[in-house]
Amino acid sequence: MNNRNDALALDRADPLAALREQFSLAPETIYLDGNSLGVPPTASAARAQAVIGGEWGEGLIRSWNTAGWFAMPRRLGNKLASLIGAAEDEVVVTDTISINLFKALSAALRVANARDPKRRVIVSERSNFPSDLYIAQGLIEQLDRGYELRLVDDPSELPAAIREDVAVAMITHVNYRTGEMHDMRALTEHIHAQGALALWDLAHSAGAVPVDLNGANADYAVGCTYKYLNGGPGSPGFVWVARRHQDTFSQPLSGWWGHKSPFEMNPVYRPDNGVGRYLCGTQPIISMALVECGLDVFLQTDMQAIRRKSLALTDLFIELVQTRCKEYPLTLVTPREHAQRGSHVSFEHPHGYEVMQALIARGVIGDYREPHVLRFGFTPLYLRYVDVWDAVETLRDVLATESWRKSEFAARGAVT
Amino acid sequence: MNNRNDALALDRADPLAALREQFSLAPETIYLDGNSLGVPPTASAARAQAVIGGEWGEGLIRSWNTAGWFAMPRRLGNKLASLIGAAEDEVVVTDTISINLFKALSAALRVANARDPKRRVIVSERSNFPSDLYIAQGLIEQLDRGYELRLVDDPSELPAAIREDVAVAMITHVNYRTGEMHDMRALTEHIHAQGALALWDLAHSAGAVPVDLNGANADYAVGCTYKYLNGGPGSPGFVWVARRHQDTFSQPLSGWWGHKSPFEMNPVYRPDNGVGRYLCGTQPIISMALVECGLDVFLQTDMQAIRRKSLALTDLFIELVQTRCKEYPLTLVTPREHAQRGSHVSFEHPHGYEVMQALIARGVIGDYREPHVLRFGFTPLYLRYVDVWDAVETLRDVLATESWRKSEFAARGAVT
Repeated sequence: MNNRNDALALDRADPLAALREQFSLAPETIYLDGNSLGVPPTASAARAQAVIGGEWGEGLIRSWNTAGWFAMPRRLGNKLASLIGAAEDEVVVTDTISINLFKALSAALRVANARDPKRRVIVSERSNFPSDLYIAQGLIEQLDRGYELRLVDDPSELPAAIREDVAVAMITHVNYRTGEMHDMRALTEHIHAQGALALWDLAHSAGAVPVDLNGANADYAVGCTYKYLNGGPGSPGFVWVARRHQDTFSQPLSGWWGHKSPFEMNPVYRPDNGVGRYLCGTQPIISMALVECGLDVFLQTDMQAIRRKSLALTDLFIELVQTRCKEYPLTLVTPREHAQRGSHVSFEHPHGYEVMQALIARGVIGDYREPHVLRFGFTPLYLRYVDVWDAVETLRDVLATESWRKSEFAARGAVT
Repeated sequence: MNNRNDALALDRADPLAALREQFSLAPETIYLDGNSLGVPPTASAARAQAVIGGEWGEGLIRSWNTAGWFAMPRRLGNKLASLIGAAEDEVVVTDTISINLFKALSAALRVANARDPKRRVIVSERSNFPSDLYIAQGLIEQLDRGYELRLVDDPSELPAAIREDVAVAMITHVNYRTGEMHDMRALTEHIHAQGALALWDLAHSAGAVPVDLNGANADYAVGCTYKYLNGGPGSPGFVWVARRHQDTFSQPLSGWWGHKSPFEMNPVYRPDNGVGRYLCGTQPIISMALVECGLDVFLQTDMQAIRRKSLALTDLFIELVQTRCKEYPLTLVTPREHAQRGSHVSFEHPHGYEVMQALIARGVIGDYREPHVLRFGFTPLYLRYVDVWDAVETLRDVLATESWRKSEFAARGAVT
């Protein structure tokens, strides 16, 4: 592509273009960080008022039933299901992704060890999002039964690392830093062939790429709703459990929302049937209610259409950076192969931090990840092709002026 | 008291009366369930709009720093501290009370067993809020190291049950059903004399009665913000850790928010110093932001003034029920002794469920707890003495008409 009009033409032909109207977008900003925090659906503000003024203020305690608060984790889970290849009553929206990972990993170890008590290894990648590794470390330390976290340095080493001593492979589908995507079906097949269970982290997948948990025969999955799903800052996470595992064990965070009869107030825990037992305590209703506003936009299209536009946006971004900024030391980190790419693109630059600060100052918001990585997220529901063009032009300006060199040390530390 | 004018006179003399204006109260409703879900502070609606429109919509990802989102659990913890006798950097607002209990109980067992590995008993009450017992059961099952949950049937049995084999006494300060309050200082002293640790649940205490965690030399505490603190439906819980225990162990839900340097993205967990290590994953910011609106009202008064009015309201309610409804089979469950009473009052009635449904239908909202218990919460920030008078008159009308008998079976099950 050689000029901005070509990008505008793509926007005119974009079947998803109208969905952009359903988001409240900051003026004079090109937001390429929806992979970290999505933008507000326009419906969110009114929904918050309805929950606060009507459901909370007037309905008061009755709203746990009359406004469906108590049922919300299950209801939203069912709305989310179609985006990730899950069926009814397999997903609940609740707690945080890290806490859901603790639940799922705990349960997966029980299932794996009931089959074969000798398996003591959890496999993951050193480049996984650190919180996932921390949760595994915390659980291993707590259990104190000789479990081990085996980390590979490169995705290509995963198949060999997943062997007969492995209980659970805890894999993040799309890498938060590189944007590299695993083949969920093939890797799950390998994991199962080795007698282990597959636990998938969908943080950078849900709403970003088509996911088919049941089609891949996965065992457990967790994810968040505040990135591509536009649920709001820190909005609750989700946990999916394959139906075949749901009733085998309860998970250790066995709070009253996961009880079979929570209002009987029985002193003995009896887990609910199905995925309900993955609930724990009373949920933050206002934050959770807004998750629905984001999901409702997704239900007006489908993940195949979103994927087509996502690949077109990331293809265009890569092409424009590599042609229009070719004289600068930018190294593409994200795979060119569509099948291995999520919905964000990362480039390394020796002064990545300062480049990103300069971009943000000019209204192009991406983010920076140690070390040296400029990360740009592409969210097809509200991004245009012309935004991609304008973002690359801004990047080129930044690189050309190199004003970022002067503030190199002053700026560092101001934004994390 | 013999007439409504006496109640109105008490309201005119009430030093807290003006605070009522800072809450959005439902019309024609006397809300006696603030011990279950508080009402909205008037500031909440505008705060939600500012967070959604300004901080989220315009600040976008930058608001994690610029709007203080990342620091919010610590900042709100410090605001809450004075209400529960905690010091700076001892409390964080985060996650749910059940999850915080799991963290605190896990850490407490580590501390207790580092001192004496033979102690394998967790003591609590069978009448404790069930979710607390479920969490202990889940942890015991997960650890699978011979821990045991010892439950007493009556509070008077606690001292004898807390003996040389006990690791942790997990005690709820004010009983959710009866409103009975423990002497935190005396019981903690006994727990320590027996070589055990004291973990307090403040669900019905924070904002309800004066609490002095440091004065009582307590070890751990958890609580919620959606009851007396008016944080909103399911707003995040809190966890307090005595400074002497903070740096001894990390807790097993070791997510990235509890890491010493979360943005270094190091694959190895290193717990933050202090109570920060009790954080786990990304928090629901919109729900959490509203917690501050509730706390800001408390900071205009103090817990001693609130306690004086709370006791006056509950004394009046007990007196009026026992004089004006004396011909009906109502049995006071809550202690008359001030030192043993929280801020709610419970009466048993053989048809408690139906009586409560009839009360709610007439705009007096309390709640029902199995078996037979009518529970009425008294929240001094927004309740008047005349509300107490009017509530008892409504109760008397309900009992006199006995219309609830007819719908006994039809109504049951509609509200939980």
